[in-house]
Amino acid sequence: MGTGLIGCSFTLALKKAGYNGHIVGYARNQSTLDAALARQCIDSASLDATCAVDGADLVMLTVPMLAMEGVLKQIASELGQDTIVTDGGSVKGSFVSAAQRHLTRLENLVPGHPIAGRELSGVAAAQEDLFLRKRVLLTPLPQTRPEATAAVSSLWKMAGAEVETIDVEAHDRVLALTSHLPHVLAFALVDMLAQRQEHEEIFRYAAGGFRDFTRIASGDPVMWRDICLSNREQISEAVTALMDNLVHLKSCIDDSDHQQLLNVFARAKDARDRHTKIEIRSE
Amino acid sequence: MGTGLIGCSFTLALKKAGYNGHIVGYARNQSTLDAALARQCIDSASLDATCAVDGADLVMLTVPMLAMEGVLKQIASELGQDTIVTDGGSVKGSFVSAAQRHLTRLENLVPGHPIAGRELSGVAAAQEDLFLRKRVLLTPLPQTRPEATAAVSSLWKMAGAEVETIDVEAHDRVLALTSHLPHVLAFALVDMLAQRQEHEEIFRYAAGGFRDFTRIASGDPVMWRDICLSNREQISEAVTALMDNLVHLKSCIDDSDHQQLLNVFARAKDARDRHTKIEIRSE
Repeated sequence: MGTGLIGCSFTLALKKAGYNGHIVGYARNQSTLDAALARQCIDSASLDATCAVDGADLVMLTVPMLAMEGVLKQIASELGQDTIVTDGGSVKGSFVSAAQRHLTRLENLVPGHPIAGRELSGVAAAQEDLFLRKRVLLTPLPQTRPEATAAVSSLWKMAGAEVETIDVEAHDRVLALTSHLPHVLAFALVDMLAQRQEHEEIFRYAAGGFRDFTRIASGDPVMWRDICLSNREQISEAVTALMDNLVHLKSCIDDSDHQQLLNVFARAKDARDRHTKIEIRSE
Repeated sequence: MGTGLIGCSFTLALKKAGYNGHIVGYARNQSTLDAALARQCIDSASLDATCAVDGADLVMLTVPMLAMEGVLKQIASELGQDTIVTDGGSVKGSFVSAAQRHLTRLENLVPGHPIAGRELSGVAAAQEDLFLRKRVLLTPLPQTRPEATAAVSSLWKMAGAEVETIDVEAHDRVLALTSHLPHVLAFALVDMLAQRQEHEEIFRYAAGGFRDFTRIASGDPVMWRDICLSNREQISEAVTALMDNLVHLKSCIDDSDHQQLLNVFARAKDARDRHTKIEIRSE
């Protein structure tokens, strides 16, 4: 349920891979459901979350993160004894907390996060190859049934993804550093520039490096607000750590500290080049 | 003179466009000159800067920025009465100051900055289309002869670039914001992550957005140290402005200020999307 970019890309990928189970879509607007039906992302549709999950073997929640808790609360009493519940949200701690508040059978819970996306959103942006060779991180709880994790894992593999499991807290800390912090930085930079008097001139002279660097500032503002609110502490800590580093770099610049600047830049280049090579090799 | 990425890409582009003047290359190492000769970036070569400029109509300095002053000092007395001097450095204020200290004929000075580059450097990375449809900013001084500016401009146009003129101080302020600051941020982020205990895990789970965002952290550390030292005040101010914005964003996150977060993100996305479209249209 949830018929946006992630949900529809997932079901398109499953159908392409030959999945023949019945897929029910849920959304708040009929127009979204109509679009998902038209693209054959789903087999049937419902504007009522409780109806949508009726008799389901597996429920995947891909609604906006701040809407997760409301939907969990709605559907909790309608879930079958063995109905597996998973999600596609970018923050896992807040989703797990919400699930703990509302679900009675946590052994069926398999929180998940596909590390893939686009700057675009909605049914129209869905792509059957969105998850191809992308990582999906599952964060099963200690009480999660291994069969539930295996079932969710096999669906993601069917969709072309590489599945790994990771601890909830580690997930949110690592993603705060590698995804949420860069987004906050890109938003902060573009916003700072846009407020300058000479902003037309500024963007006019920006080169390719700037466009790459700020591409993620074109992400969906509501989604990123939700992520920031859902992973507040980890993101706040990551911003602080980055600012400590920036304060140090700034003092090196102010003091014309040739050696320290070179050390930092060389260390960063080395790490970037080394890890990018590993990444390319693994793809 | 200067037979690295910028110098050699420039001469390759000129030769491709049919330029038939004699081009003399200068470098500190014979191996660099040999490589430039082998790729036919230059017609002859010299390890002696004063010999290289002997009888030249135009001298283009593309040596590393902190080496500019030493070379200017060396060649100053060898320049002819009308020999035009230009450069390809990323910071203009420091180059102009050095030129003012050493050159007697500032009417021949046309500082320049091609807004193009690669993460790679050196002769081997040179490309004849590096400047194609890229902006080149010239920052002539009040006393610069219009004919000198026109001559440099026409060479860059021959190399495929779009030439604009801008004030020295405005150049350094705008570039600090759109190029130097993003590089400092990317270096700071990657360095911060690389120093974490769990850095293998961190880079392992980084997605495409992270790779784009940190691509510029693969830039040449020496070049970026030189840029930071050459444009210290503007970069330091830009870092401060960005940190002010980050402190504000962090407090919005800490306070769960839904509306402010949405405002900042939406404003940034809007500016990014609007200016990127303009950029695409103009290309």
